[in-house]
Amino acid sequence: MPRKITSLTAASALSLLAAPAFAEDPRSTLPGAVAQVAPALAAYAEGALFDGEWAQAALAPRDRALVTFATLVTRHEADTLAVHAALALDAGVTPAELSETITQLAFYTGLGNATAAAQAIAPVFAERGIAPEDLPGATPGLLPLNEAAEAAREATVQGNFANVSPGVVANTREVLFLDLWRRPGLAPRDRSLVTVAALIAAGQPAQMTFHLNRAMDNGLTQEEAGAMLSHLAFYAGWPRVFSALPVAKQVFEARTP
Amino acid sequence: MPRKITSLTAASALSLLAAPAFAEDPRSTLPGAVAQVAPALAAYAEGALFDGEWAQAALAPRDRALVTFATLVTRHEADTLAVHAALALDAGVTPAELSETITQLAFYTGLGNATAAAQAIAPVFAERGIAPEDLPGATPGLLPLNEAAEAAREATVQGNFANVSPGVVANTREVLFLDLWRRPGLAPRDRSLVTVAALIAAGQPAQMTFHLNRAMDNGLTQEEAGAMLSHLAFYAGWPRVFSALPVAKQVFEARTP
Amino acid sequence: MPRKITSLTAASALSLLAAPAFAEDPRSTLPGAVAQVAPALAAYAEGALFDGEWAQAALAPRDRALVTFATLVTRHEADTLAVHAALALDAGVTPAELSETITQLAFYTGLGNATAAAQAIAPVFAERGIAPEDLPGATPGLLPLNEAAEAAREATVQGNFANVSPGVVANTREVLFLDLWRRPGLAPRDRSLVTVAALIAAGQPAQMTFHLNRAMDNGLTQEEAGAMLSHLAFYAGWPRVFSALPVAKQVFEARTP
Repeated sequence: MPRKITSLTAASALSLLAAPAFAEDPRSTLPGAVAQVAPALAAYAEGALFDGEWAQAALAPRDRALVTFATLVTRHEADTLAVHAALALDAGVTPAELSETITQLAFYTGLGNATAAAQAIAPVFAERGIAPEDLPGATPGLLPLNEAAEAAREATVQGNFANVSPGVVANTREVLFLDLWRRPGLAPRDRSLVTVAALIAAGQPAQMTFHLNRAMDNGLTQEEAGAMLSHLAFYAGWPRVFSALPVAKQVFEARTP
Repeated sequence: MPRKITSLTAASALSLLAAPAFAEDPRSTLPGAVAQVAPALAAYAEGALFDGEWAQAALAPRDRALVTFATLVTRHEADTLAVHAALALDAGVTPAELSETITQLAFYTGLGNATAAAQAIAPVFAERGIAPEDLPGATPGLLPLNEAAEAAREATVQGNFANVSPGVVANTREVLFLDLWRRPGLAPRDRSLVTVAALIAAGQPAQMTFHLNRAMDNGLTQEEAGAMLSHLAFYAGWPRVFSALPVAKQVFEARTP
Repeated sequence: MPRKITSLTAASALSLLAAPAFAEDPRSTLPGAVAQVAPALAAYAEGALFDGEWAQAALAPRDRALVTFATLVTRHEADTLAVHAALALDAGVTPAELSETITQLAFYTGLGNATAAAQAIAPVFAERGIAPEDLPGATPGLLPLNEAAEAAREATVQGNFANVSPGVVANTREVLFLDLWRRPGLAPRDRSLVTVAALIAAGQPAQMTFHLNRAMDNGLTQEEAGAMLSHLAFYAGWPRVFSALPVAKQVFEARTP
């Protein structure tokens, strides 16, 4: 971690001097006011979070940057999204993946979080020359459907809620599972990863069983899932993670032969 | 839906040319940055949400605008409240109803959400010449009380919590049920509607049984409630609605003879 | 409550004329737009909240200002934190206690809430001449550890989650319970108080049993806890408090001989 970058503007100025413009350094995300008002917190962030958690091998820095971004979108922390988007891009998340993450989280955390995220990171995309035509369009070729899994999901939701809200049942099928989840711009494992991160951050453990299983079906390892919980404790708060731990435990145990 | 209006400022400029200044068009609420950063999301919003969900007959556009506004107040999405207040007014929600919704949600989602909402929509009221004296005052004549229902509610809350927090028990009675809920500026059905929307958006399904029953006692139909769940999935996120669906199912079934 | 102060700027101007610059008056926290858009809410705030709840003897004004601040940090209501920090300082909360509250809530509600709080109140600290060297540093002498309680806590968490997320288990022990909770800049009773307030405000009643018991072990009385619930109903919304009441009831009853 070569140097501390304290703001997007400072980073932009430095970009005239040397590449890469944004060091892949989570330190770049901590506002200077923290050291003024809560020096102890600045020290904890430096030690336990940036030197500690971010450096643990159990989850790749690229994945950490992606789930952090997803968490902040979920929490509507628009003021820090630009610097975290820059961090994610420097850590290897592609512009297409950030764009798809925002689209995914529109459905899984509410449209307003996604529109605020789009507004917050538009300047980062503009500065890096990322144009709409570089991003996944509305109608890409779709990934193949796991028809058996989808039939089972649909049967459950139909059986439970067809008489409660036919609109939800239809939109869940047509918009989410036959379309959104099959978009190729974000790998299924990563789409699941940001969705589970969002459920943890939003305090929705009851909705996590289905999606954590799906994430692991899509390739997320138990070690990575455990490390994500440790990482998110810092960004979503310990209580959110302690509400998610029993669900993760149950999922892990049920998958163990 | 005659044309796309992308911002309040643009709408103001257009108001010199043609009335109505604000078309009743939910498209007006989507920031332009979405198409720049997440073109797929812009397409989903256009198709599934604006052409799809908003056009479903199961819930009136006026009700959709009102519950969307309530959801955004609950989520503290202050930056989009002005354009959604304008949309609601164009869709037939009265200034008095918006004012009462903010007051209701101060109690049901926290004072800070309501004060931020007041700050966000004050310019809309000013632009349209809506003055404080046009709005419901502090001490209107109150709607009659359903004394049997209130006695049952009070007995339950007293029995459970009189020794835990006498302050909550007293304020719930004096401020909320003997006063706030009896204010005539927002019809009981609509007061319940925005309250249920707020409970869904805030992830409080445990508090929903009482208020959804009250909403239906006050005239909300099962079809409208189901359509509201479908509508709110877009604005509060699918997981919030999936946590609310079992509660709605239970309420609907318990009311079916 | 000598006079109404409507903004930080107005208060600053008045400071040239008379001390104290900030009256200890919660009225100072209500934005003027409320009276414009929701006059009924302005009247409720004046009557039920400022004249009513804040004046109840069951919880000291200093404690009310502290838990209000904690609630607003938890809800990411950054725009009102400056005026509430000023109110808290005027009510007897020390700069060190505000600083430690922000650090505590970084862990219990997520880093971004704490960094936004630091940014929001940095001008208040600057205006009052509070410098980083006046605040608790990174490595103060620590309060003694209750070794039996810590051993029991660690055994439970290890037993439940060591195989789920070893990182969470380690950080919870090393960073939180062996370090953060032992920092002397915020008394254990107050550290627990802001933590319980945060759990209520964030809708995490499941995590409240441990922390409310800890708060009462640390000196919070049942009457104070009940009054805090009544106070927080206004700032976090009634439903959050009604989800917390059964947990408080259970804790109170289990502690009654």
